Amino acid sequence: MIIVLRPHSTPAQIDHILERIQELGLRSHLSRGELRTIIGVIGDESKLQAEPLSALPEDSVVKVGSVRVGGGFMAMVAGPCAVESAEVLDGIAGEVKAAGANILRGGAFKPRTSPYSFQGLGEEGLKILRDAGDKHGMPVVTEVMDPRQLDVVSRYADMVQVGARNMQNFDLLREVGQTDRPVLLKRGMSATVRDLLMSAEYILAEGNHQVVLCERGVRSFEDSTRNMLDMSAVPNVKGQSHLPIIVDPSHATGRPDLIPAMARAAVAAGADGVHVEVHNCPEKALSDGPQALLPAQFSGLMEDIRRLAEVVGKTIS
Amino acid sequence: MIIVLRPHSTPAQIDHILERIQELGLRSHLSRGELRTIIGVIGDESKLQAEPLSALPEDSVVKVGSVRVGGGFMAMVAGPCAVESAEVLDGIAGEVKAAGANILRGGAFKPRTSPYSFQGLGEEGLKILRDAGDKHGMPVVTEVMDPRQLDVVSRYADMVQVGARNMQNFDLLREVGQTDRPVLLKRGMSATVRDLLMSAEYILAEGNHQVVLCERGVRSFEDSTRNMLDMSAVPNVKGQSHLPIIVDPSHATGRPDLIPAMARAAVAAGADGVHVEVHNCPEKALSDGPQALLPAQFSGLMEDIRRLAEVVGKTIS
Amino acid sequence: MIIVLRPHSTPAQIDHILERIQELGLRSHLSRGELRTIIGVIGDESKLQAEPLSALPEDSVVKVGSVRVGGGFMAMVAGPCAVESAEVLDGIAGEVKAAGANILRGGAFKPRTSPYSFQGLGEEGLKILRDAGDKHGMPVVTEVMDPRQLDVVSRYADMVQVGARNMQNFDLLREVGQTDRPVLLKRGMSATVRDLLMSAEYILAEGNHQVVLCERGVRSFEDSTRNMLDMSAVPNVKGQSHLPIIVDPSHATGRPDLIPAMARAAVAAGADGVHVEVHNCPEKALSDGPQALLPAQFSGLMEDIRRLAEVVGKTIS
Amino acid sequence: MIIVLRPHSTPAQIDHILERIQELGLRSHLSRGELRTIIGVIGDESKLQAEPLSALPEDSVVKVGSVRVGGGFMAMVAGPCAVESAEVLDGIAGEVKAAGANILRGGAFKPRTSPYSFQGLGEEGLKILRDAGDKHGMPVVTEVMDPRQLDVVSRYADMVQVGARNMQNFDLLREVGQTDRPVLLKRGMSATVRDLLMSAEYILAEGNHQVVLCERGVRSFEDSTRNMLDMSAVPNVKGQSHLPIIVDPSHATGRPDLIPAMARAAVAAGADGVHVEVHNCPEKALSDGPQALLPAQFSGLMEDIRRLAEVVGKTIS
Repeated sequence: MIIVLRPHSTPAQIDHILERIQELGLRSHLSRGELRTIIGVIGDESKLQAEPLSALPEDSVVKVGSVRVGGGFMAMVAGPCAVESAEVLDGIAGEVKAAGANILRGGAFKPRTSPYSFQGLGEEGLKILRDAGDKHGMPVVTEVMDPRQLDVVSRYADMVQVGARNMQNFDLLREVGQTDRPVLLKRGMSATVRDLLMSAEYILAEGNHQVVLCERGVRSFEDSTRNMLDMSAVPNVKGQSHLPIIVDPSHATGRPDLIPAMARAAVAAGADGVHVEVHNCPEKALSDGPQALLPAQFSGLMEDIRRLAEVVGKTIS
Repeated sequence: MIIVLRPHSTPAQIDHILERIQELGLRSHLSRGELRTIIGVIGDESKLQAEPLSALPEDSVVKVGSVRVGGGFMAMVAGPCAVESAEVLDGIAGEVKAAGANILRGGAFKPRTSPYSFQGLGEEGLKILRDAGDKHGMPVVTEVMDPRQLDVVSRYADMVQVGARNMQNFDLLREVGQTDRPVLLKRGMSATVRDLLMSAEYILAEGNHQVVLCERGVRSFEDSTRNMLDMSAVPNVKGQSHLPIIVDPSHATGRPDLIPAMARAAVAAGADGVHVEVHNCPEKALSDGPQALLPAQFSGLMEDIRRLAEVVGKTIS
Repeated sequence: MIIVLRPHSTPAQIDHILERIQELGLRSHLSRGELRTIIGVIGDESKLQAEPLSALPEDSVVKVGSVRVGGGFMAMVAGPCAVESAEVLDGIAGEVKAAGANILRGGAFKPRTSPYSFQGLGEEGLKILRDAGDKHGMPVVTEVMDPRQLDVVSRYADMVQVGARNMQNFDLLREVGQTDRPVLLKRGMSATVRDLLMSAEYILAEGNHQVVLCERGVRSFEDSTRNMLDMSAVPNVKGQSHLPIIVDPSHATGRPDLIPAMARAAVAAGADGVHVEVHNCPEKALSDGPQALLPAQFSGLMEDIRRLAEVVGKTIS
Repeated sequence: MIIVLRPHSTPAQIDHILERIQELGLRSHLSRGELRTIIGVIGDESKLQAEPLSALPEDSVVKVGSVRVGGGFMAMVAGPCAVESAEVLDGIAGEVKAAGANILRGGAFKPRTSPYSFQGLGEEGLKILRDAGDKHGMPVVTEVMDPRQLDVVSRYADMVQVGARNMQNFDLLREVGQTDRPVLLKRGMSATVRDLLMSAEYILAEGNHQVVLCERGVRSFEDSTRNMLDMSAVPNVKGQSHLPIIVDPSHATGRPDLIPAMARAAVAAGADGVHVEVHNCPEKALSDGPQALLPAQFSGLMEDIRRLAEVVGKTIS
């Protein structure tokens, strides 16, 4: 496990953390850089789980373009499931920006259960996404599924997403760990919180500390929702890690009627943002339309979120 | 399915609902009483799931002693897992009341996985609970595990709880349906939302409409929490039923470090209250101590909840 | 945990077991009766889990009427989900007996998810079941759902079943523990193997050692089968307990096309029998018809089972 | 969905299948090749699920080196989790061959939850595996985790494995679909049977029809086994697909005391083989040692399997 200390940690604070690590029977390796100090923890890091939060460093803040995520700043990631055309995306981007979104999402390479479903527009989709982000003043995030796509995705995207199905595609994790792009790492459908944190370690261990985690629901027996949103993952992660975590109620529930309540709950639970699919014509979307909010619904949700953010002391960057 | 209409529904409102039911291919049976009007729906009630909320009647309000639950009023149920002694309970009751709890909980008959664990004080525990409730001005709720305990439990308790392990003990459900006591029905560890609503129907069908549902986590593969709290059950239930639903983050997570965040999230998700275990000496508790909050932690949580309640337009009765 | 020794255990064998228990840091209490010797184990019995089988006593043999279950003898429990009429049951009983079944099943009190579904014929159903068992020379097993039904059920049935939904209805377990009827205890839909064994302890602790466990599938995300049959529960239970365990592929899969293969697998896995629903007109059955085998299918399955039983050294009593 | 017909299907048999497809409201596309005839089914292929087996073509037989898998021939895949050294692997290979294994397994690229665990020997491991296979006369199978490893893996291995964590790494599936190597596709930890079949489609759709599926357990709440072996997946897959399916009780249970019973059950359930980890010194293995059988245990298991294979009419190639 790697603990990234905040820039201005005092020697006393660092010593305190090193002592706690030692008391737990773990070894540590301190590495002071010019910009940041890192403590590597060697041994059974599950022992850190029960530790009081005070032993942990400040939350990391990840920069996506000019948008800060973590440490009190919230990401409002919105957009369609897949990039379909410049016109459709432009319309959606304008509306989510107006409503208060600060990061635009859209898939160009789509992981689909069936090989016969729409697989995304590829590089053409990336260009459309980049243009829409530039026009509306939002950094953009999109999924990378294969190490060989990483170059082209990094050329267009401000943040790369590793999707749930690839959360344990360890070669892909290592590759994104070698880039300078912030990474949105989604929890696998049957991954424990510990599995998620270990997958983040694959990225961190390569030197890329700009990782934002995302809870997006896990498989369960409940058949009235697409997955089961494990809301407790938010404080659970925060007790063990300095990394920001956001919540995706769209994929978690698959039901527009439940998304706003779950987005509100995520903010109250301490999430560093939400990730919501928005489409201006869900019934015509080429992928996952039925789970998208309409722009007007998203706008109403953003009002609720702003009020809740105030109560929990968070800012939308 | 039984739809309980609010007292002053107009004939036009009732006709509207009857038409919607008919359009869905279901039959209905209208029963006008002096105090309330009930519509019985016959057929595949899953068809109602996709219906817009406007077709559903106003939320039911359940009265527990003088405390209202539902329809904008929130239950703050707190207390120890088990009633252990008059002294311990008196101390806890005083503290949770001061913090803002409005219903006192405590188990006298305890369902324990092992026959060799503490099984509760029985009737002696019920007396202690009643006295503590009276002294501190809170109605009390306690679990009933067996139809034969129902008489004695009803004598002492304002509300009877049917626990997760008995959610499909259908004979018990029918029996509590024949009493005049409000019922707190907890979701089974592997029950779907639909299963929970069908179990509520067993109670409603006997004539007792005073049912409050409780989400308390379901079994999952995640091993860092006791169960997985299905927060989406809150809006999911509210879209299908007029019954209040509260959330129990204590049993759901089994971890005091996660309980406050989950209680806050529940309020933001629209829950009609929370159910939290509080003990002034968790390490000495005879049952489930490690998952209890300290009174001071509960007090801090109540402050958060009051601020969130204002945002979501709810009142603590 | 209670270890029931076989009737003719030698003092050396008993001493060996006592020593192993002590080595594991557990305490034991030896109780020599006229008919059987029992060792009570006090402490963390999970330590016994990793122990080689040689430390465990011989398998218990449970007698159901004249049919032996366990210790190399297999129960072939068959019949309809619910007793519907004397005529229908008589037909089915004749056919399953001819095919090789040795215990007849049929529900008179039915636990149904919805209160509007067929709830069983009650005592009338018990009489019909008793008559069919007598006529066709098979002991009968039927479910008891409520402690207050236990007298009437015991009057008619050779074995009482505690269903999956009541596996943690602890008062019911204690009550059946006080009868002299063998008990068929089905695993709850979200019960771990340890939970199942602890529920068995509730019965054993009251003095009734005639318990047969039943694996019948647990809830999972897989939606093409009704539940997920945990076949590994068979050797898992056998490594920790002397109790017989049978497998119910009917409720586990809910699909007649999968039942025969799962019944065969159960025998190969070491199960002490199978529990299969058979109906001569599944599409007209009042309960769970679609998951029943036709008599001819059951007959074909019994032929397979007899061949497999020979390979694994088992006998159908 | 693609249905591969057996070489000598008669026109009448093909017409019969085409008619059934049409009756189900699906469209078909017949493609007669020199060596085989293929029917592509377009539309909602879930409709085929309920179809009687008679409508499906004969089982496919996959050739791995000279070993046939499927259509009555069973694969006995055995070997260590990871290739550690030539000496260790040579010893294990000799023993499993003597016991009756017909395919040798061993990992050179290891997917490990933690980046700090042993990651495999890479190409050096592949060479060692190839040599051991050649020396002991067994084709070899090993995992590929990244499309960029595919060339080197294909150079050494007779069969490539796509592991559970990569079951929905769709780019990898497409790549292995473009090779001429048979593929062992393991079910993901939270994949439904339908998901597994759709992932197989990704490979088949690229033209590689040599796919063997593998059930290796899914995530569940049961905490006494590593995963839950879904044995019903065997007949479930066979009712919907012509592809062979084998069972891996090692990863499914993670417990050597349960592996033999589950391997026996798999054969009785109709599996086309088993996949078992064997190590001559499990406690010193660099990966997953505790779940490996000792060579002597494997040898005993093979005897059981041979007897069961006879009963179910299967041959070990």
